[in-house]
Formats: sequence, C-alpha cells, structure tokens
Amino acid sequence: MTSGAATETAPDNDTGRIEAFSDGVFAIAVTLLVLELKLPDTKKYGVWTGLLHEWPQFAAYLTSFFIIGIMWANHHSMFTSIVRSDRVLLFLNLLLLLWTTLLPFPTHLVAEYLRDGGADAAQAEAVYSGTLTLSAIAFSLIWAHAVRGGRLIAAPLGRREEWRSIARFSMGTVFYAATIGISFLSAGAALAIQFALALYYLFEQVRSA
Amino acid sequence: MTSGAATETAPDNDTGRIEAFSDGVFAIAVTLLVLELKLPDTKKYGVWTGLLHEWPQFAAYLTSFFIIGIMWANHHSMFTSIVRSDRVLLFLNLLLLLWTTLLPFPTHLVAEYLRDGGADAAQAEAVYSGTLTLSAIAFSLIWAHAVRGGRLIAAPLGRREEWRSIARFSMGTVFYAATIGISFLSAGAALAIQFALALYYLFEQVRSA
Amino acid sequence: MTSGAATETAPDNDTGRIEAFSDGVFAIAVTLLVLELKLPDTKKYGVWTGLLHEWPQFAAYLTSFFIIGIMWANHHSMFTSIVRSDRVLLFLNLLLLLWTTLLPFPTHLVAEYLRDGGADAAQAEAVYSGTLTLSAIAFSLIWAHAVRGGRLIAAPLGRREEWRSIARFSMGTVFYAATIGISFLSAGAALAIQFALALYYLFEQVRSA
Amino acid sequence: MTSGAATETAPDNDTGRIEAFSDGVFAIAVTLLVLELKLPDTKKYGVWTGLLHEWPQFAAYLTSFFIIGIMWANHHSMFTSIVRSDRVLLFLNLLLLLWTTLLPFPTHLVAEYLRDGGADAAQAEAVYSGTLTLSAIAFSLIWAHAVRGGRLIAAPLGRREEWRSIARFSMGTVFYAATIGISFLSAGAALAIQFALALYYLFEQVRSA
Repeated sequence: MTSGAATETAPDNDTGRIEAFSDGVFAIAVTLLVLELKLPDTKKYGVWTGLLHEWPQFAAYLTSFFIIGIMWANHHSMFTSIVRSDRVLLFLNLLLLLWTTLLPFPTHLVAEYLRDGGADAAQAEAVYSGTLTLSAIAFSLIWAHAVRGGRLIAAPLGRREEWRSIARFSMGTVFYAATIGISFLSAGAALAIQFALALYYLFEQVRSA
Repeated sequence: MTSGAATETAPDNDTGRIEAFSDGVFAIAVTLLVLELKLPDTKKYGVWTGLLHEWPQFAAYLTSFFIIGIMWANHHSMFTSIVRSDRVLLFLNLLLLLWTTLLPFPTHLVAEYLRDGGADAAQAEAVYSGTLTLSAIAFSLIWAHAVRGGRLIAAPLGRREEWRSIARFSMGTVFYAATIGISFLSAGAALAIQFALALYYLFEQVRSA
Repeated sequence: MTSGAATETAPDNDTGRIEAFSDGVFAIAVTLLVLELKLPDTKKYGVWTGLLHEWPQFAAYLTSFFIIGIMWANHHSMFTSIVRSDRVLLFLNLLLLLWTTLLPFPTHLVAEYLRDGGADAAQAEAVYSGTLTLSAIAFSLIWAHAVRGGRLIAAPLGRREEWRSIARFSMGTVFYAATIGISFLSAGAALAIQFALALYYLFEQVRSA
Repeated sequence: MTSGAATETAPDNDTGRIEAFSDGVFAIAVTLLVLELKLPDTKKYGVWTGLLHEWPQFAAYLTSFFIIGIMWANHHSMFTSIVRSDRVLLFLNLLLLLWTTLLPFPTHLVAEYLRDGGADAAQAEAVYSGTLTLSAIAFSLIWAHAVRGGRLIAAPLGRREEWRSIARFSMGTVFYAATIGISFLSAGAALAIQFALALYYLFEQVRSA
C-alpha cells in the first residue's frame, strides 16, 4: 500500500525476481494439491476398493499436477525470451498466479462431484475448465504485452512473426474454452481431454526440444 | 536460542537472505489462502448457485491475494534501496512477516461472517483491517529505520526528503486504519474499499513505472 | 498449454531451474507432512498416553520425513553429475515429483490403518510401498536417460561402468518392491524395514563421504 | 534409496544447497502455523470475545513464530562460519529440520489444552518444550561437529575457544530443558518464559549487532 519506495529507487527491470516468486508459487500450488485428497471410506469397502471408488479425486489430482507442471515449464520458456520487466508485466503475471493458486479449489470441486454425474458434475467441471481458460488468457496477455514492438524481449520480431507467436499462444485458450462447453455433454470426457492435452503438450515439447 | 554464532562470525550485512526468506513467506502465504476456501453447499443450491452464495469467501480471497501481491512488490522495491542490514531490520522484517503469515486467518474470519452482516461481520472485518494496519505500520518502521540518516541505504537523503518519503510510506497505515472504523458502518464497504485500494496501487505503480 | 515460447527461444539446457523447482517441492512436501498429524484423543487417555496410542502416525511421519530427506540428497548428488537438460529429463523429473508430492497421502493412509492390523493395514502399507517403488523407478529412469552414451553428463562412462551405475540405482526399486510383498506378511514390519533402510542409506552415505 | 550418484560424482562440499533447503523449510514451517488456528465459537461469544477466549492458540502461534524466526537467523549465522559440508552435517541438519517441521504439531497441542490447565495442559506444554529442547540439541551437535578441530570452518579456533563456543551454543538446550520441568508447575508460565526468551534473544542479537 506504500508506493514510496518505487519512486525513490531506480527502476529494477530484471525479471529474475518475478521468475523466482512465480517458481515458488508453482512449486507450492503443485504440492498443496495433495491436501485435498481424502481418505477412502473403508467401513463400506476396504482400503483398495475404497481408493478405486475415489478415482475422481485422483483423476483431478493427476490432471492438475501435470497442468501446473506444464505451466511452470512454459513460464520458464517464456521468461528466457522476456529480458526486461515493467509494472504491467508484474500485474499480468500476478493475474496468472491468481488462477494458479486458485486451481486446487476447482480441483477439489471436480473431485467431489465428478462421480455423481449430472448437473453438479457438469457445473464443477465447467468451473475447472473456466479457471484453466482464465490462466491461458493470462499467459496470452503476458506474451502479447512482452512481444508487441519488441517491448520486453531482446530483439523485436517482425510484425508477421509477432502475430504468429501470439496466435500460437492463444491455442491453449481456445482448447480450454472448448472444454467448458464439453463439460455439459460429459464432465468425465472434458477432464479426460484436459489430461490428454496436458500429456500431449508434455510430449510435444519433448519432441521439439 | 543460541546466539553464539552471531558473536563468532563477522556480521553479514547483505540483505539477500532477508529478501529470499521474505519472498518465500509471501509466496507461501499467497498460495495457502486457497486452503481456507470451502466447498459450496450443493444440497440446497447446486454447484454454481452454491458458489455464488459463498461470494464472501471469494471476495476475501481476491482482496488478500492482491494485498499480499502488492506487499511482495513493495518489499522488493524497498529492498532495492536498502543495501545494508542490521538486527533491527531483521526484527522489524520479522514483524512484517508475522502479520503477513497471519493474514489467512482474518481472511477466513471475513469469509465466514461477512454475509451475516451485523456485529459479527463488523468485528471480523475490523480484525482484518487491524491486521492490515499492523502490516502497514511494520512497513513504515522498516523504511524509517533504514532511511534515517542514511543508515541502511546507499546515499543519505536530505532531511526534508527523508521525512517526505517516510510520510509517503505512512499513507497505507492511515488508509487501513480508516477501514477499521468503516467496518462498523458497513463491513462489505470496508472490504470493497480495501480491494479497490489494492487495485489502485497496482495500477498507480503500473502508471509510475 | 502454450508451447510457442519454447519454439521462439534458444533451448535453455541449464539444469539449475529443474533443481531449484525440485528443491522447493521436496522442502514443501517434507514440511506438509505435519498437517496430517491429528491431535490425540484425550477424553479417553490424557495427552501423553493419547500420543503413544497414536504411534503409527509418528512412525509413518518419521519414515516419510527421512525418505524425502534422502530423495532430496540423492537428487542433488545426481544433478551434480547431470550437466545438461532436455525435455525428457524434464518429464521424468516431473514424474519423480508426482510421487513425491503424493507421498503425504499414503503416509496418512498408513497412519490411519496401521494400528488396526489385518487387511486394511496391509493394503494401506502396500499402497505406501508402491508409491515409494514408483519414485525409485523414476529415479532410475532419470539416471538411465542421463547416463546412456553420456547424454546429459559431462564425460561418457564406459559401457560397463554405465550399466553398473544404472544397476546400483535400481537397488532402491528392488528393495521397495520387496516391501510391497512384505506388507501382506506384516504391515508394521514393512514400515520398520523402510525406516531402517532410510537410516542405513543416510549413514552409508555419511560413511562414503 | 539410491546411493550410486554419490559415489559417481565428485563430493560437493558447498553448504549453499543445505542453506537453501533449510531456508525453504523454515519459511514453510513458519507460514503453515496459521493453518492450525481455528475460528472462534461465535454462537456463545461474538467474534472479538470468541477470539479473546481462544488466546492460547495465539500465544502458542506467536511463540512458535518468533522461535522459528530465531532458528532461521541462528542457522544463517552458523552457516556463515561453516564453509564446508560433509554427510554428517547433512544428517544433523536433517535432524534439526525434523524438529522444526514437527513444531506446528506441539504448537497445536498447546493451543488445544493450555486453557484447560491441569494435567493435559502440563503434558502438552512438556511435549512442546521437549520438541524445542531436541531442536536446541540438534543445533549444538551441528556446531560441535563443525567446529571440532576446525573441521568445517574456515580457520580452527583454539581448543579453549572451541569449547567456549560449544558451551555458549548449549545454553538454549539448558533453558528449554528447564521449561520441560516448569510445564508441570505451570504450563502457562513455561510458555510465557519461552516467549520472553525468544524476544530476549531477538533483542540481545539486535544489541550485539
């Protein structure tokens, strides 16, 4: 709430502190997911059957784990290109972290309602997909802000290449937004698609490296 | 509880370790907020209506998220000016982290009682505002200690500039203290003002960068 | 979900970011374990007797604490040899972190069911042993991928030495897989073996250093 | 569980990775404390009176917060003197982190039983004091191991100075062990002494800096 220091000091344009803070948040968010897992009901089932019965919470856990893992990897890739920072970048990055830190909550929601099927499952999965869409939009905004006119990157891209790279970054937004719709056809299918997409991007990145 | 090492070793005046520790605490505190969010009551409402019904917990989450985000940014700005450390700085910084790590608790309090209105909402919001006031005071104390006579900064400011910078840092304290009073007129209004203030400072810093 | 940046930028082959992220996850996972400890039932027992009665949760806590501690130490040792990174390494490391972040859950399972003995205790301990086995396999895969043909290490080992080092790394997998079987003879014995093995490796590493 | 890497690689004697890991654990442990705070019972009391009624949880929170804060500061002071690492140091440091990560549990215990007074309060506070004693012992062991014959420090101290520095480090152990006994006279007094000691050491270090 005290903006004095910013005025006093020379602007620090290093991106290192943003990366370190974001890495911390990604690492914590991915590790906190486990706290939402609940013990199986062994009165009715025994441990193994009880765990199998609770499959939605593990499906949601796995999907969120790999999605946060990819977000971390992408964030790093992006920040090897971004060599300067400004306050807009700081704000957009905070927006990205907002949806990332929130993710354990819709994950919990999906874990709780997926098995029931019906309206609750669809609505829970739609909230989950919506959160992912918002984080994808934040990613696009960061990249668009950084790349436009070479604002925060080392060497400006050509106008054409600039738009192509922004378009490529908006693919995630399109896919995730589509899964909001799919949630209402089948919540389970929407989650399966998100899991498959996460694995695909992991392997696609493996291939392209 | 063992102060021997401090005596044995040359004083380490770098501020790097204080910054790294504080960054860790800010990152963890901002990520832990999600653990206080509870699932909606879907028996009565369905998922979406249930989530809407729980709006106070999301309002409190959002406000605390952006306030900790700003605190992190301010802390960094401040420590680009502070180039030496001493034990008083260490203690005052610990005091700041105390109120930061505590923040998820009053956030939970506001989430729980805001909707009820009445005395409980007012008292919960006053506790929240009080915690923010204490963290703003800790910020002011850190800056005043560092800047007085150029104690921990690179080049001493003039006496006039010194006081002006301390005054500027005490604005947050004044605003937050005011929201303690506003809590008793309307708890919701106090929280809305805190959220608006957080966004304003984010954008004001964006503008000044 | 946006792989654009990876294509735009020069590949960053440093392992530093993988290590820093993994260290964060290890530190968080080891510290989160405490959240699964529940207060003793003092109505029936008094505090001390109640705590003694809850010995399985402390046995599980201690074992998981030292196992994550060793994993952290091993991970570091491994990454002093690994000097380059690629996307396969990133993926295999994410797999290792998956089982590490999951560990507090089977720890909780063992804490809950160990005392009851019988089928529930055996199944819970088998899940715990299975998770440890999966993390040991991930460790082996990382090392095998890095060392084969000197892919990610400074100087290629001879073919013979390559296989010997991979074999040595697969010992953990063999031991942990064996404890899956032992869980069904005696869940308590399986946990005791895992604890003893953790201490042995700690001291063996102490001896070899 | 795979000690192969340690044998393959040159020993890395830097203490940086131990410090970074420990800093992470201290930062997480101090921030997790807030999760043990429970909302006041407002049915009977209203928010403020309810919070006052729950004073033991805040007393325990404050004490643990400052104790972990001091442990972090001492750990750093100690590691400015320790310039080499070995596996024994790694193990002793892990022991210190064990009691640190465990601390939120006895803190919770004290928060729960302190107000009741009587045997439960005494036993809970004795467990808390015992945990602090164990962490103080771990501190002494680390220093004794590092300093003996100049094993891990830059320049060996004289024999006399060596023992004096170890003795100074064992003061914490003596004080904490004493509070185990005091717990049975008055649990509240024992906690108050621990809080006062924490503040004293903070200020004593401030004075000596």
